[in-house]
Amino acid sequence: MADMNHIIEGVLAGNRRAIARAISLVENSSVTPKELLNGIHSATGRAYRVGVTGPPGAGKSTLTNKLAKLYRQRNLRIGIIAVDPTSPFTGGALLGDRVRMSDVEMDEAVFIRSMASRGSLGGLSKKANEAADILDAAGHDVVLLETVGVGQSELDIAGAADTTIVVLVPESGDGIQAMKAGLMEIGDFFVLNKADRPGADQAVMSIKMILGFRPHSESTWMPDVLKTQASEGKGIEEVVEYVQKHREHLEKSGALAQRRMERLERRIREIVERQLHIDFWNPDRSLLLRSQIEKVYEKQMTLYDLAGSLIESFKITQSFAT
Amino acid sequence: MADMNHIIEGVLAGNRRAIARAISLVENSSVTPKELLNGIHSATGRAYRVGVTGPPGAGKSTLTNKLAKLYRQRNLRIGIIAVDPTSPFTGGALLGDRVRMSDVEMDEAVFIRSMASRGSLGGLSKKANEAADILDAAGHDVVLLETVGVGQSELDIAGAADTTIVVLVPESGDGIQAMKAGLMEIGDFFVLNKADRPGADQAVMSIKMILGFRPHSESTWMPDVLKTQASEGKGIEEVVEYVQKHREHLEKSGALAQRRMERLERRIREIVERQLHIDFWNPDRSLLLRSQIEKVYEKQMTLYDLAGSLIESFKITQSFAT
Repeated sequence: MADMNHIIEGVLAGNRRAIARAISLVENSSVTPKELLNGIHSATGRAYRVGVTGPPGAGKSTLTNKLAKLYRQRNLRIGIIAVDPTSPFTGGALLGDRVRMSDVEMDEAVFIRSMASRGSLGGLSKKANEAADILDAAGHDVVLLETVGVGQSELDIAGAADTTIVVLVPESGDGIQAMKAGLMEIGDFFVLNKADRPGADQAVMSIKMILGFRPHSESTWMPDVLKTQASEGKGIEEVVEYVQKHREHLEKSGALAQRRMERLERRIREIVERQLHIDFWNPDRSLLLRSQIEKVYEKQMTLYDLAGSLIESFKITQSFAT
Repeated sequence: MADMNHIIEGVLAGNRRAIARAISLVENSSVTPKELLNGIHSATGRAYRVGVTGPPGAGKSTLTNKLAKLYRQRNLRIGIIAVDPTSPFTGGALLGDRVRMSDVEMDEAVFIRSMASRGSLGGLSKKANEAADILDAAGHDVVLLETVGVGQSELDIAGAADTTIVVLVPESGDGIQAMKAGLMEIGDFFVLNKADRPGADQAVMSIKMILGFRPHSESTWMPDVLKTQASEGKGIEEVVEYVQKHREHLEKSGALAQRRMERLERRIREIVERQLHIDFWNPDRSLLLRSQIEKVYEKQMTLYDLAGSLIESFKITQSFAT
């Protein structure tokens, strides 16, 4: 495919239109464009990936925006992937990231892409990882992954970063809800945004207390809590410095390579499972399931009986296929 | 297994200890106790399943508790499954459902079970469905499934009910956040709890407006919004009546059988995928992945190369196995 080679070359050259097309291929294809991802693989691994997550309304987009601006002032090329939950029945994003990102969107060295979580059925973190690979291969120095911290799939994306920042606000600051949502475990450090609001100091204390209970997997790293007022640009410098501090910690300890290998392993597992899913649920087998389901409903057979016979039919097909 | 037959008989007789043991088997086993589930299958399908979901803090447990009480006054046997998000690092529920459920927990005709979402890796809705089957087979007339409406897995559980109630509060009432979380699509009707708080009427209006945009799959059913103050017991009667109204609608239109067959289909798909997962990731293949991952990290091969060779090795094994 000459066209695919053209896209790959364009991505590697940092061409914006090629990058946009490549991400669209990854996002919209039901079949993964393997050739594309194989073609850029050797150019990946240079970008530093920073996840920004937290509950809705914490100011993640604003923080991401300000981080991008500051990195730009340091002459770094920035890629942003914003995963925006959309509703299956509205068919679109409720709030356009393009609007919220307006500070940096006109900057040619910042590439911003919104991805919809709608209809991606668990493939979201796979697609976000692959989009990050594309931005990485295209020569961006930092890739910011902004995701709302509700739902496993979104947490997976945040966990796909080298450094994950969890953004909270005083209202969510007692930490209990964040803890329930699984946010406290994935943060490499925490940002208390809108820190001018009442209760900010208590919220910081409470987060720190909860963090104190967290087992420290990398013994020397203790996540801290920083205060920001992202909309006023306050505290952003400190966040960038803290990302750098965490990065140096990971590099020195060898944990960065370790993290990245674990991430690759998770991604390969996900690729395998999706392929198996596609191989298994071919039209014939889906039809077989549908034609038998009434028997399960009528109690003539059990769920496990039917599941077993479907798996049996797969094994036979596989045996013929090889 | 004489022991398993003993549990099955106990469940079918409505014995509380047998029910508790059966649910524990489903919840804690990495391998599904097929024999148990096959053994009770023919006794399922009699209970009516009601999902209660919504954002954290909406008062779901209180509402569930009051609903159970009211059903009890009508001499119905009630099963409750509460899926409580727990933190992987605390290792337990943050708030004990047993405490919150105290109104009904001493009642012998109410069976309450908390299930942890921790560590269940996507199998949560499978386990909740199976626990509901057990309560169903044990002769409970109504099974209440209480889940927090954050995360796909939790939404799946709510969707596993015959009637799903989405609980909101005035603070979450603009509906936008609920919409983002996917809650608006799954509700058969909506309860605005804590309706004495400011903004309740506007919240109801706003929810109704959003519902107006929702395509109606079952043309004659239009979800309504009821107001409650669950902690004071206000509005509970209306909720019970509305559940009944929805149930009659489903039964008359034939949609109940349809919903239940679709649910069975989803569950069989999930059983199949889990089994494939177990078959695929045997110790040998996991070892193969781990031994090759460094090559991917070092750019000697791509993610898709390694995924492809793992799948190839599975096909060969399957061919030998049959």
